[in-house]
Amino acid sequence: MPRYRLTVAYDGTNFHGWQKQCTAGGDAAVDIRTAQGVLEQAVRETVREPVNVLGASRTDAGVHAVGQAAAFTCDSEMDTDRLCAAINARLPDDMQVRRADIVSADFSPISDAIAKGYRYRIAWGRGVRGGPPRPLFGRFTTFWTPYDLDAARMNLAARQLVGEHDFASFTRVGQERESTVRTIHDCRVVASRPRRLHIHVAGDGFLYNMVRIIAGTLIEIGRGKLEPDAIEGILAATDRSGAGATLPPQGLCLMWIKYPEA
Amino acid sequence: MPRYRLTVAYDGTNFHGWQKQCTAGGDAAVDIRTAQGVLEQAVRETVREPVNVLGASRTDAGVHAVGQAAAFTCDSEMDTDRLCAAINARLPDDMQVRRADIVSADFSPISDAIAKGYRYRIAWGRGVRGGPPRPLFGRFTTFWTPYDLDAARMNLAARQLVGEHDFASFTRVGQERESTVRTIHDCRVVASRPRRLHIHVAGDGFLYNMVRIIAGTLIEIGRGKLEPDAIEGILAATDRSGAGATLPPQGLCLMWIKYPEA
Repeated sequence: MPRYRLTVAYDGTNFHGWQKQCTAGGDAAVDIRTAQGVLEQAVRETVREPVNVLGASRTDAGVHAVGQAAAFTCDSEMDTDRLCAAINARLPDDMQVRRADIVSADFSPISDAIAKGYRYRIAWGRGVRGGPPRPLFGRFTTFWTPYDLDAARMNLAARQLVGEHDFASFTRVGQERESTVRTIHDCRVVASRPRRLHIHVAGDGFLYNMVRIIAGTLIEIGRGKLEPDAIEGILAATDRSGAGATLPPQGLCLMWIKYPEA
Repeated sequence: MPRYRLTVAYDGTNFHGWQKQCTAGGDAAVDIRTAQGVLEQAVRETVREPVNVLGASRTDAGVHAVGQAAAFTCDSEMDTDRLCAAINARLPDDMQVRRADIVSADFSPISDAIAKGYRYRIAWGRGVRGGPPRPLFGRFTTFWTPYDLDAARMNLAARQLVGEHDFASFTRVGQERESTVRTIHDCRVVASRPRRLHIHVAGDGFLYNMVRIIAGTLIEIGRGKLEPDAIEGILAATDRSGAGATLPPQGLCLMWIKYPEA
């Protein structure tokens, strides 16, 4: 039985996150629209088997993806391009499969992932007097703040997150993972247009809300409420209260997930 | 009594066009959400007078604007930046006032307009096999076609629309304007990214659906169903049936309106 990995993009605005939500009885609740649920339904219609689709990353409600990975096993053997097209024909216009690959029978999109990359988009300015207005067409994909941000300052701070650290300060209190140590391979703040910036973060894995709390902390530094070298102390404290706010989901996008070559 | 001109941007997706729609009784129908209606309501709340807001261009449902102009006269004299901010505070997040100017008491946003510029955005490709997939985040602002387009061919054709012509072939049959002669100052097709292009059109005025029919005609040329030099014959025929289809509204954006310097 072949196993397939799909690379999936979705506009998270109208999804209640990735993960299928179950009612108390354990059946999938039909009234909660999730990315996993919508994709699984389209895959089941395509392959005409009641497959389970497992995703690599449980993105939250409102979070976007252009490089989510999802895998399933089925009896049918299909050309991967045809599989893509057939699934896409059954998907709503806020989700699309960008490629399909045949993977080994024991492939796990979660534990086989080597690295992931996220982007957080921020716009600032008060409009009219204070510069350009808040995003209009980009309001579902960009977080907006009225405060002036210094991207260079933020970038200095971002570099200090690179490496292996205990990121306990950068995750929601009470999250249950055993270890809060993660390795960040890259963390950069790039001024993309006047009063717009992107935070790019890549690492071996991420704790719950980690990128949104990193973005919230970098914003504090960008507006001058914290110094760029505050990162070291925040990491060392392993205490959520020292880091910035959890920024809202719409600025976040899961960009890519890296797997070993087949 | 001062008169103000507002420069207005809106995401047309959730508006039933610009123009306020009236019930048979002549009252504004409260259940039809129009850009003019929403703006007028915000202006009335701001200046606390039952002003009428007149727009320059009656954009259709789903058509966007970043440079719509709208004018109103009221008793209150306000600083234009404060006026902007006060109106914006009362607008929903799919509309914003980008600037306000004081104009003469007899200013008309319609008859004083010297020129207008529009952009029509197109993406193409069949996804997976045929190239990148259809727009996901841009699906409300871009028209998508599966057919490969040749932007250079389209641009050759676009240049032939420049000048004073009878554009009767490029408007909806039965439209009531007296003259269908207009002057196009600029018409260009610009490849913006791989498999993406923008059509830029500027002119002294536009007939109903004119830009969307121009875009529909240029697409026929771009995919090879018409030759670039077909434009001359289509114009000469003064007959709607020779031109291409009216493309859907979401690709269209009213970019700017030019007025004489005060």
